[in-house]
Amino acid sequence: FIRNQLVEQFKCLEQQSESRIQLLQDLQEFFRRKAEIELEYSRSLEKLAERFSSKIRSSREHQQFKKDQHLLSSVNCWYLLLNQTRRESRDHATLSDIYTNNVIVRLAQISEDIIRLFKKSKEIGIQMHEELVKVTNELYTVMKTYHMYHTESISAETKLKDAEKQEEKQFSKSGDLNVNLLRHEDRQPRRSSARKIEKMKEKRQAKYSENKLKCTKARNDYLLNLAATNAVVAKYYIHDVSDMIDCCDLGYHASLARTFRTYLSAEYNLETSRHEGLDIIENAVDNLDSRSDKHKIMDMHNQVFCPPMRFEYLPHMGDEVCQVSAQQPVQTDLLMRYHQLQSRLATLKIENEEVRKTLDATMQTLQDMLTVEDFDVSDAFQHSRSTESIKSVASESYMTKLNVAKRRSNQQETETFYFSVSLCRPVCFLMTVGSL
Amino acid sequence: FIRNQLVEQFKCLEQQSESRIQLLQDLQEFFRRKAEIELEYSRSLEKLAERFSSKIRSSREHQQFKKDQHLLSSVNCWYLLLNQTRRESRDHATLSDIYTNNVIVRLAQISEDIIRLFKKSKEIGIQMHEELVKVTNELYTVMKTYHMYHTESISAETKLKDAEKQEEKQFSKSGDLNVNLLRHEDRQPRRSSARKIEKMKEKRQAKYSENKLKCTKARNDYLLNLAATNAVVAKYYIHDVSDMIDCCDLGYHASLARTFRTYLSAEYNLETSRHEGLDIIENAVDNLDSRSDKHKIMDMHNQVFCPPMRFEYLPHMGDEVCQVSAQQPVQTDLLMRYHQLQSRLATLKIENEEVRKTLDATMQTLQDMLTVEDFDVSDAFQHSRSTESIKSVASESYMTKLNVAKRRSNQQETETFYFSVSLCRPVCFLMTVGSL
Repeated sequence: FIRNQLVEQFKCLEQQSESRIQLLQDLQEFFRRKAEIELEYSRSLEKLAERFSSKIRSSREHQQFKKDQHLLSSVNCWYLLLNQTRRESRDHATLSDIYTNNVIVRLAQISEDIIRLFKKSKEIGIQMHEELVKVTNELYTVMKTYHMYHTESISAETKLKDAEKQEEKQFSKSGDLNVNLLRHEDRQPRRSSARKIEKMKEKRQAKYSENKLKCTKARNDYLLNLAATNAVVAKYYIHDVSDMIDCCDLGYHASLARTFRTYLSAEYNLETSRHEGLDIIENAVDNLDSRSDKHKIMDMHNQVFCPPMRFEYLPHMGDEVCQVSAQQPVQTDLLMRYHQLQSRLATLKIENEEVRKTLDATMQTLQDMLTVEDFDVSDAFQHSRSTESIKSVASESYMTKLNVAKRRSNQQETETFYFSVSLCRPVCFLMTVGSL
Repeated sequence: FIRNQLVEQFKCLEQQSESRIQLLQDLQEFFRRKAEIELEYSRSLEKLAERFSSKIRSSREHQQFKKDQHLLSSVNCWYLLLNQTRRESRDHATLSDIYTNNVIVRLAQISEDIIRLFKKSKEIGIQMHEELVKVTNELYTVMKTYHMYHTESISAETKLKDAEKQEEKQFSKSGDLNVNLLRHEDRQPRRSSARKIEKMKEKRQAKYSENKLKCTKARNDYLLNLAATNAVVAKYYIHDVSDMIDCCDLGYHASLARTFRTYLSAEYNLETSRHEGLDIIENAVDNLDSRSDKHKIMDMHNQVFCPPMRFEYLPHMGDEVCQVSAQQPVQTDLLMRYHQLQSRLATLKIENEEVRKTLDATMQTLQDMLTVEDFDVSDAFQHSRSTESIKSVASESYMTKLNVAKRRSNQQETETFYFSVSLCRPVCFLMTVGSL
C-alpha cells in the first residue's frame, strides 16, 4: 500500500512540475507574441510621427531662421504631439526589448530550475522511499522472527508440559511403586525409567527457557522496530514529503515574482514616461494664447501691419496759413458745425454704449460656449468589476450627435448676431467728422 | 500705397487661415491614422488574450468545479495578466473610438469655423477698406478744392493788386492833374477814367475777398478732413486690424484647446485604467505564496499525501505480552542498547546541529540570491531632454549576459551544496534506532 502511495506522490509532483513548465511556456509564448505586438505598435507610431515630421522639415526649410521666436502656440502643440508619438514609439520598443531580452530569459531559466530541482528532489525522494521500504521490510522480518520464536516457544512449552505430565504419571505410579517397593523391593526397571523422564523434562525445560528468551527478545525487537517504523513513516509524511515539495519549489515563487516585477517595472515606467509627455502637451495647451499668436503674426508681417505715415498738411504754394482759421466770417460756420458734431457725438456715444453692452453680453455667451468643459471622456474608460463583460459605452456617452448639432447651431447664431452688430460700428463717428 | 497694403493684409490673413486649415487637416489625418494604429493594437492584444483564455477554458472544463478554491497563486498571476491584456485591448479600442468620433469631428468643426469666420471678417474688412479709400479720396478732393480756391484767391489778389497799382498810378497822375486841374480846370475825361479804375478795384476787391473766404473755408475743410482721415487711418491700424484678426481667431484657440484636452483626457484615463490593472497584478504578485500553494496541492491530492494507518502491534496467537519486557535476562541487553543509542543520539545531535547551521546559512544565501531586487528597468525609459536623439540603452543596462550567467552558476553551485547536505540527513537517527 505504502509503495503504491509513494509512486502516486512522485506522479503528483511530476504533474505539478509539468503544469508549471506548461505555465512558463505559455508565459514565454505570451510575452514573445506581446513583444511582437509592441514592436509593431512602436513601428507604426514611428512611421506616423516621421510622416508628418518630414513634411514639416521640408516645408519649414525656407523659413528655418524664424523658427523659434515665431512658433505659434497652436503649432507648438502639434509639434509636441508628434514628439509624444515618437516618445511612445520608443517606449513601446523598449518594452518589447525588455520582454524579449529579460522577461522571457527569466522564464526560460525558471523552467530549467524546475526541471533540475525536480530531478534532484526525485533522486533524494527515491532514496527516502527505498529506506522506508527497507524499514517496513525489516519490520515484517522481525515480526516473522517473533512469530517463529513464539511458535517454537509454544511447542517447547507443550513438550515440556508433556514431559511434566509423564513425570507426574510416573511419580504417582512410583508412589504406588514405593509402597509396593517397600513391599516388594524388586522394582529396579521402573526407577531408571523415572530418571529418564526426569532427564527429558530437564532438557525440555532448558529448551523451553531458551525458546522463551528468544521469543521475548524477538518480541522486544518487534515492538521497538514497530515504534521506530511508525516514527519513520510519520516523520516522512509530516516532514519529508513537505521538505521534498519545498525542494521542488525552491525559488520558484521568488523567481516568478521577480519576473512579474520586471514586467511591472517596465509597464509602470512606460506609464510614467507617457505621463511626463502628456504633461508637456497639457502645459502647451494651457499656454494656447490667441493674443500672443496675433502679435507674432503681426510681427512676422510687420511691413503689412505697420500704420502708414500720417497724411501731412500740404499748403498750397505760398500759403503760409497752416491752421484752421476761426475768424469771422467762418467762425459762425465753425461754431455751428461744432455744435452739430457735439450733438451727433452725444447720440453716437449713447448708441455705442448700447451696442457695446450687447456685444459684451454676446461675446460672453460665445466665450461660454467656446470654453465649455466638454472634453472629459473618463466615462468611456470605466471597467466593470467583472472583467469578462466588454462594455461599448464609448461612442454613446461623450458626444451624442444631437447635442453637438444643437450646440453648434446655437454657437453660429450667436456668432452671426455678434458680427451683425460688431465691426462696422466704431468707425461711424470719425466718418461723420470728415463728412459733416 | 494704402490700397496695396490693405490687399496684402487680406493675403496675410488668408494665408494664416490656410495654414490653420492645413494644420487642422494634418491633425485630422494624424488622428485618423493613430485611431487605426490603436485599433490594430487593440485587436492584436484581444487575439493574444483570447488565444490563451480559450486554451485555459478548454483545459479547465473537466476540473471546473475546483476552480476557485484551489487556484494557485502563480496561476492567478497568469489569469490576471490575461485580464490586463484584455483591459488594455478594450482601452485602446476606446481611445481609437474617441479619436474617430470626437477628436476628428471637433477638428473638422474648427476648420469649418475658420472658413466661415474668415469669410465674414473679410466682408467686414472690405467694407472698412472701402470706407478708408473713400475717406482718403475725399481728403484728396478737399485738398484739390483748397488748392484750386487758393490759386483763384492768388489770381484775384494779383488782379486786385494790379487794379490798386493802376489806381495809384492814376492817383499820382490825378494828383498832378488836380494841381493842373486847379490851374487848368478842363481835365474832365481823366476824372471818369479814375472812377472806372475805382470801380474795377472795388470789383476786384470783392472778388478777392470772396475767393479768399472760399480759400479759407476750403483750407479749413482740408485741415479738418486731414485730421479726421489721420484719425480714421490710425484707428484702423491700431484697433480695426486687430479686431479683424480677433474675429478671424474667434474661438480658434479655445476650440483647439478643448480638442487637445479631449485627447489628453482620453490618454490620461487610459493611463489610469492601465495603472489600476497593473496594481491588481502587483497585488497578486505580492501574494505569490509557496506555502499556501503547497497546501493547496496537498489538499487537492489528499489521498496521496495523507499518512497511512500506523502499523499496529500484531501479537502472535495466544501471546498476551504486548510490551517490551525489561526483566532479567534481557534487561542487561536493553540497558546496553539504551546506552549505545544515547551516545549515538548525542553524536547525531551534534552532527545535526552542524548540518543545520550549514543548511541555514546556505539557504539564506540562496534566498538572498532568489530575492535579489534585480527587476527595476527604469533606466531603459530615461528620455534625454532633446527629444530628437533616440537612445538604445535598453538591452545594455538591465541584463548583461555575463552578469546573468555568473549569477546563475553561483546559484546552482549553492543549490547543489544545499542538496548534498540536506535531505538524507534527518532520517538517520530513526534508521539507527530500528537497526541497532
